[in-house]
Amino acid sequence: MNDIIVQKFGGTSVADTEKIKNVAKAVLKEKNLGHDVVVVVSAMGHTTDILTKMAKDITPNPSSREMDMLLSTGEGVSIALLAMAIQAQGCDAVSMNAIQVGIITEKIHSKARILEIKTDKIKQHLEEGKVVVIAGFQGVTDDLEITTLGRGGSDTSAVALAGALKAKRCDIYTDVEGIYSTDPRIVPRASKLKQISYEEIMELASNGANVMHPRAVETAMIHNTPVRVRSTFKLDDYGTLILGANEMEIQKPVTGIASDLSRIRIVVCDVPDNPGTAALLFNELAKENISVDMIIQSYARKDLHTNDIAFTMEKDDLNKAMKVLEQIKPDLKYSKVFADEKIANVSIVGAGMIGKPGIAAKMFKTLANLGINIKMIATSDIKISCLVDSDRANDAVEALHTVFGLDSKEIAEVKGDLPNI
Amino acid sequence: MNDIIVQKFGGTSVADTEKIKNVAKAVLKEKNLGHDVVVVVSAMGHTTDILTKMAKDITPNPSSREMDMLLSTGEGVSIALLAMAIQAQGCDAVSMNAIQVGIITEKIHSKARILEIKTDKIKQHLEEGKVVVIAGFQGVTDDLEITTLGRGGSDTSAVALAGALKAKRCDIYTDVEGIYSTDPRIVPRASKLKQISYEEIMELASNGANVMHPRAVETAMIHNTPVRVRSTFKLDDYGTLILGANEMEIQKPVTGIASDLSRIRIVVCDVPDNPGTAALLFNELAKENISVDMIIQSYARKDLHTNDIAFTMEKDDLNKAMKVLEQIKPDLKYSKVFADEKIANVSIVGAGMIGKPGIAAKMFKTLANLGINIKMIATSDIKISCLVDSDRANDAVEALHTVFGLDSKEIAEVKGDLPNI
Repeated sequence: MNDIIVQKFGGTSVADTEKIKNVAKAVLKEKNLGHDVVVVVSAMGHTTDILTKMAKDITPNPSSREMDMLLSTGEGVSIALLAMAIQAQGCDAVSMNAIQVGIITEKIHSKARILEIKTDKIKQHLEEGKVVVIAGFQGVTDDLEITTLGRGGSDTSAVALAGALKAKRCDIYTDVEGIYSTDPRIVPRASKLKQISYEEIMELASNGANVMHPRAVETAMIHNTPVRVRSTFKLDDYGTLILGANEMEIQKPVTGIASDLSRIRIVVCDVPDNPGTAALLFNELAKENISVDMIIQSYARKDLHTNDIAFTMEKDDLNKAMKVLEQIKPDLKYSKVFADEKIANVSIVGAGMIGKPGIAAKMFKTLANLGINIKMIATSDIKISCLVDSDRANDAVEALHTVFGLDSKEIAEVKGDLPNI
Repeated sequence: MNDIIVQKFGGTSVADTEKIKNVAKAVLKEKNLGHDVVVVVSAMGHTTDILTKMAKDITPNPSSREMDMLLSTGEGVSIALLAMAIQAQGCDAVSMNAIQVGIITEKIHSKARILEIKTDKIKQHLEEGKVVVIAGFQGVTDDLEITTLGRGGSDTSAVALAGALKAKRCDIYTDVEGIYSTDPRIVPRASKLKQISYEEIMELASNGANVMHPRAVETAMIHNTPVRVRSTFKLDDYGTLILGANEMEIQKPVTGIASDLSRIRIVVCDVPDNPGTAALLFNELAKENISVDMIIQSYARKDLHTNDIAFTMEKDDLNKAMKVLEQIKPDLKYSKVFADEKIANVSIVGAGMIGKPGIAAKMFKTLANLGINIKMIATSDIKISCLVDSDRANDAVEALHTVFGLDSKEIAEVKGDLPNI
């Protein structure tokens, strides 16, 4: 059996029939290198928006089960058309939706997680020389209910398929040329990275570097599948290779800088300093599927016997969170709640910062020099995040990019030859 | 368990979101009568045309397997939107595609026949008080390949579901108000029939009265399911009830007149008068899935030891048929072949003509009086068809409508009360 390459093309790459023909060429190119090729595609262009609008014309609150039924038709169209386009270029191909493959997920509509991928039918098609074109974003439960995977769903489909098929590599084709040290729209001197580790890209992605969804990166990390982010429109470009930190030559403590404006900060004031109050609060939020990022609980003021609890979350979840807080007010006994929308989460990320002291201090000092106030701080092994005023986010990113030595293009690139992946 | 009513709505009935909301009202109306309701829908309006055009943009000859994958997405959209619309009107509903139901077909793409319909999941939903909205036109093979049922597919889906569920009735909602004694566009005095038998509608349909596909009628007949053809836009109209001939009070030898312009006549000249030549010809045509209607073989001319064989078939199949004839020329040894496009097949249909002599003679005499030449004749128990020049078809239909007493509106309607179906 040949090495398997999984390719993923997003909605803009298959926006019309001409673009689909071009994608077929990219598929043939990989196939002609002697690989078995599995292609994962999203719905064409604005299909999802059009379908969503039709649903909203019918009812303002369509059920998530029927929304999944509706949206999953989008990939149904693109997989069939791409299979036809590949066949038209003389290569046998077959399209498969999630039910046909057996992409088994939890029974949660609109954001299901993949539990298992059946590979027998795919492998049979590959052995017969066919390119297999698979619908991204969608899954199916044990009892044949159609689910969708939520944000970054097609990336996750592709990487999970690559893992299940033990693919040599998963190529995420997109409209950018790779992953940069920071957002080039903010810092024009941002440099394209030739390599980055799963851990770093994950921290960058969850902080607003939207090239690949963290779920997809996490899935790649679990299976240790090398991922290449590359341009649909520059097929000869290498792009950026994502692989395990232990397989990289680590050069700099900081690989990239991210800035995330999608969050909101909630502060719950004067919560009684009793055991279990924080548990109550975050348990109720979790029940409503609200993901919380940073959490800070102020130290208990002995005189008042109360705390303030602050946390950040997605702006979209604000109404849901406020409803939860209203409901638990009798139990939580807080004095008031306020929401702060004008925040940005600025992070420095790098597997190389492990065991290197002084990185955090350098970041705080840089921000202080600019007169930027730090509202909250969160750290992990390979990331330090500071919540700052959203108006100052770009200043912070620019300064940190320079301070951590990312301005020079060569530094961001890997030394020596690129690996043959 | 309540009586089950299966409703079927075609593409024009669900052409946009407003029309889908109206269909939801028709569904609720039936549900509120205390019935369990299963709804079968086609793809919205011109969806199938749009999808077909995209496929043709990709390649002039898309594979039928991928066309089925592509086209089946059309009903995926309409079932989800209709389920949402029913929910929005306060009634629980669930959409199901062919895979989810288990509408098992042969593994023949683009015109599969239904082998089995699994009813357990549908019944479970109905027991929970839900309206079940099912994708018409599509099926699935044992190994999860998606198929489509070809022409009249959604009607067939609806009637087959009604049969499998032992429904009280299957309502085919359409843009006409029922079935007429002949095409009202040709004979304005055509009368709407209150009742017609399966056998009669089948003969009428296969002769160009396109209200319901003969496959669908045949399926209803097998299960003895009463079918009502009724208007989506006049919900209070009774429409036309189709049921078994033995359940009808037969009044007139001729119930309806049909005229079919979709056929072509092929004449194969001077075929040797040997055993097996006709078998060879029609066997090879059947291999290419070409359906032949009338067949006439001239008596063998003893002096020449050859026959002429004439037959009719769909105009669309002409190129395929000519290719077959070319291939078998060395074996069939005919002198020449010609095709006659300017033909019409005019038929009189009526379960009441069984055992009544003179009906055929009356038809031939009517045509002779008009100076219309009969090119071919075919008869069945309840139908007599004459192939005539297409220019004279309307004259023939008009005259036959009068001669067989169909002009008077009352005669075409059933005597006494309508059955409570």
